[in-house]
Amino acid sequence: MAKELKNFTKRADNYSQWYNELVVKADLAEQSAVRGCMVIKPYGYAIWEKMQHQLDKMFKETGHQNAYFPLLIPKSFLSREADHVEGFAKECAVVTHYRLKNDPDGNGVVVDPAAKLEEELIIRPTSETIIWNTYKNWIHSYRDLPILVNQWANVFRWEMRTRMFLRTAEFLWQEGHTAHATREEAEAEAIKMLNVYSDFAQNYMAVPVIKGVKTANERFAGALETYTIEAMMQDGKALQSGTSHFLGQNFAKAFDVTFMNKNNEPEYVWATSWGVSTRLMGALIMSHSDDNGLVLPPALAPIQVVIVPIYKNEEGRQAITEKVLPIVDEFRKRGISVKYDDADNRRPGFKFADYEVKGVPIRLAIGQRDLEEGTVEVMRRDTLEKETYPIEGIVEHVVAQLDDMQSALLKRALANREARTIEVNTYDEFKEKIEQGYFIMAHWDGTPETEERIKEETKATIRCIPFEGDNTPGVCMVTGKPSARRVLFARSY
Amino acid sequence: MAKELKNFTKRADNYSQWYNELVVKADLAEQSAVRGCMVIKPYGYAIWEKMQHQLDKMFKETGHQNAYFPLLIPKSFLSREADHVEGFAKECAVVTHYRLKNDPDGNGVVVDPAAKLEEELIIRPTSETIIWNTYKNWIHSYRDLPILVNQWANVFRWEMRTRMFLRTAEFLWQEGHTAHATREEAEAEAIKMLNVYSDFAQNYMAVPVIKGVKTANERFAGALETYTIEAMMQDGKALQSGTSHFLGQNFAKAFDVTFMNKNNEPEYVWATSWGVSTRLMGALIMSHSDDNGLVLPPALAPIQVVIVPIYKNEEGRQAITEKVLPIVDEFRKRGISVKYDDADNRRPGFKFADYEVKGVPIRLAIGQRDLEEGTVEVMRRDTLEKETYPIEGIVEHVVAQLDDMQSALLKRALANREARTIEVNTYDEFKEKIEQGYFIMAHWDGTPETEERIKEETKATIRCIPFEGDNTPGVCMVTGKPSARRVLFARSY
Repeated sequence: MAKELKNFTKRADNYSQWYNELVVKADLAEQSAVRGCMVIKPYGYAIWEKMQHQLDKMFKETGHQNAYFPLLIPKSFLSREADHVEGFAKECAVVTHYRLKNDPDGNGVVVDPAAKLEEELIIRPTSETIIWNTYKNWIHSYRDLPILVNQWANVFRWEMRTRMFLRTAEFLWQEGHTAHATREEAEAEAIKMLNVYSDFAQNYMAVPVIKGVKTANERFAGALETYTIEAMMQDGKALQSGTSHFLGQNFAKAFDVTFMNKNNEPEYVWATSWGVSTRLMGALIMSHSDDNGLVLPPALAPIQVVIVPIYKNEEGRQAITEKVLPIVDEFRKRGISVKYDDADNRRPGFKFADYEVKGVPIRLAIGQRDLEEGTVEVMRRDTLEKETYPIEGIVEHVVAQLDDMQSALLKRALANREARTIEVNTYDEFKEKIEQGYFIMAHWDGTPETEERIKEETKATIRCIPFEGDNTPGVCMVTGKPSARRVLFARSY
Repeated sequence: MAKELKNFTKRADNYSQWYNELVVKADLAEQSAVRGCMVIKPYGYAIWEKMQHQLDKMFKETGHQNAYFPLLIPKSFLSREADHVEGFAKECAVVTHYRLKNDPDGNGVVVDPAAKLEEELIIRPTSETIIWNTYKNWIHSYRDLPILVNQWANVFRWEMRTRMFLRTAEFLWQEGHTAHATREEAEAEAIKMLNVYSDFAQNYMAVPVIKGVKTANERFAGALETYTIEAMMQDGKALQSGTSHFLGQNFAKAFDVTFMNKNNEPEYVWATSWGVSTRLMGALIMSHSDDNGLVLPPALAPIQVVIVPIYKNEEGRQAITEKVLPIVDEFRKRGISVKYDDADNRRPGFKFADYEVKGVPIRLAIGQRDLEEGTVEVMRRDTLEKETYPIEGIVEHVVAQLDDMQSALLKRALANREARTIEVNTYDEFKEKIEQGYFIMAHWDGTPETEERIKEETKATIRCIPFEGDNTPGVCMVTGKPSARRVLFARSY
């Protein structure tokens, strides 16, 4: 059984299959009976809860409040902003009826044709429209601004090809929607929240990200600018991990939301929206995990330390338990989430394999000889290295190891990204390198046409125009026309 | 403006209208553009978050884990359990299509008829069916049991008459779904969670509740027993505040979920489900609030203490601020959520009225003379009593007042309920008293027919057969037939 758990496809053999198997074997999620929708299992959800908790804290620290808006959006609302409806119409789940009835032919229940809605309702693919329709009533004067609201919610986009966490029809996310009196303030808000996402990714997920702005082609439907954080997965592909949009006055105009400024003149309100989703789970899983299973950064691990006793009989178990319980207490006092697994129905070898697959950062094992010698075996999930350590002072040691592991994971992911990020100057080299899985910094002439051609020919997209890094002008690798600076190309999830 | 805020309908004049106005004026929620769906505004959502946080803690302390299941349920799943579909079919929102397209006639977007689903999907009105379809794959042996899972989610029931928080088409809730090897264990779980709800209602919401079991008529669709907590609102009507269902093997049979017991024989799994929703917000609001606005128990108040400075000029404000900031710090250290409102764009009178309407438990006001005399004015929201108190020791004093207010609210609500709970022995007296708004303990012959007749003739229902209280047998007030014990009748929300 232990062996079976570890019987993974290897990353090198088939990265995509390795990921799919890992999600299931680590008990994070599974496919549901509803096309494209997953069940997030308790262990997976516990990780998501830790993410939510930290993000929510960061949103509140930056002055945001939570609220809740309706799940269903009148179809006509979607049409108000032209780009927006263009972007989402093709993936809308549509509610057309509000009642079932017994089938007159006796085949269970059928949709009651008499209960047809006058106007169809759309399950929110995102909430700009319903929220700006609401803000219209909240905003009259500059005194009502800014509005800094966030919502934790489920959304639905009828995607044709789905993958657990990375792209599902229903997903969980947060969507911030803010309203401002000036363009400058809204732009600053969009950048501020991108920085919150980037801090979260790096300091909690241990995932380094590249911040930048999307090209017009890749913008959110209805935005003037879309800012993004892009992370590299272990196969060299990019995962867009969070976006923050400067919406200008588009939604204010679509929903006629104006305010009286300090000079008592009406003006349209400026907007942002920003979101991260359960997709972050995908980024977390793919950034750190290995051929033995999940590797979790301590900051987001539901169980940070597991202690497994190894005993021959009940007496042996009791002796170990007596020694271990005060240690468990000490961990808890330090705010470390610890599990003492003395369950009798699974053998230590099975437990070891299971916690390894589940990515528990530190495993302590303690047997009869350890008791006698006052030692404990410590295993770190990231390095898989074992050491024997004195029981005295084990808590301090483990706390230091957790800290060390958190930064080691970030460092490793950063090193991986640096090793797979290159500058390329010719389109031929680009085509060759993109096949091998690289982040490629290359010159581009700034036109959607060239961008589109590269995408068609290589499946690579411009992930972003980075905020930082080399901004020397050059010439486009494809057309030879002038380029303002190198941009980041990659294949992506 | 201050006056306008307080210009409420009085409870005595029109309790129902008072409630509707209060929800809006206290900035808790508002109607949305979608029929029957509300927008929960930041202040209302902050209260719900405090409820969620505490309940979630209590669920985890009793061994439950959170997970997430799909929003949409295949229509055929609903039909599997006969009572269940009977109970929910009439209020199902039905998704029939998955795409919009541009109207060929140029009128915005229309539903794409080519994108019709083979099987319609229902927005979950509750999740037993999709969850038990999932549990089928999780449960094989007695070793896989119990499963103790909870989900925080939105659900949708197409209600014809809606009222904010009390009955909305979409609402937020938690739904626990547990699976057990034995009938006894499942029954014990259902009761355990009812007790968790009752503890929460009494100790956090300061709402006393009567625990009991529903009659067959009032059972959850698909349950063998439904346990309930019933609270009395200030108008003497009952509000069902939480239910916990013993589902027997109904859903296991409907979804063919069996396990191998210790004797290696297959058995159907035993189930419970239990839920509380944003309806609790309605219970909270209606239990304590008065003609001046919301009254919140300190344990669930987003702002527990507000401090309002009263000053003539900037210098005066600064002098007060200097005195107040260390007090604010001290409150925070004590875990008290405090707001120092020195905003310059609203006058103190307006602030007083606003915080009163919003139910902030303690208001401190401090002016020039207070500074000189080392005092502060303290107002308690429940009693509206003001006192002048020395600034020295104010934090201790306020902490004690908050504790006192928490228990005073429960006591008051309990006294209100006791004053309006009576025993009645004749149907004539019953009809008279029910008009006046009472919880009536009366004998009933145990038949659905008599229950139905009483409901039709008086609009009163049996809220529950209480676990506690007088269980002397008697005769039914309507039919004169034997009655096992008095049951609780009331009109209800």
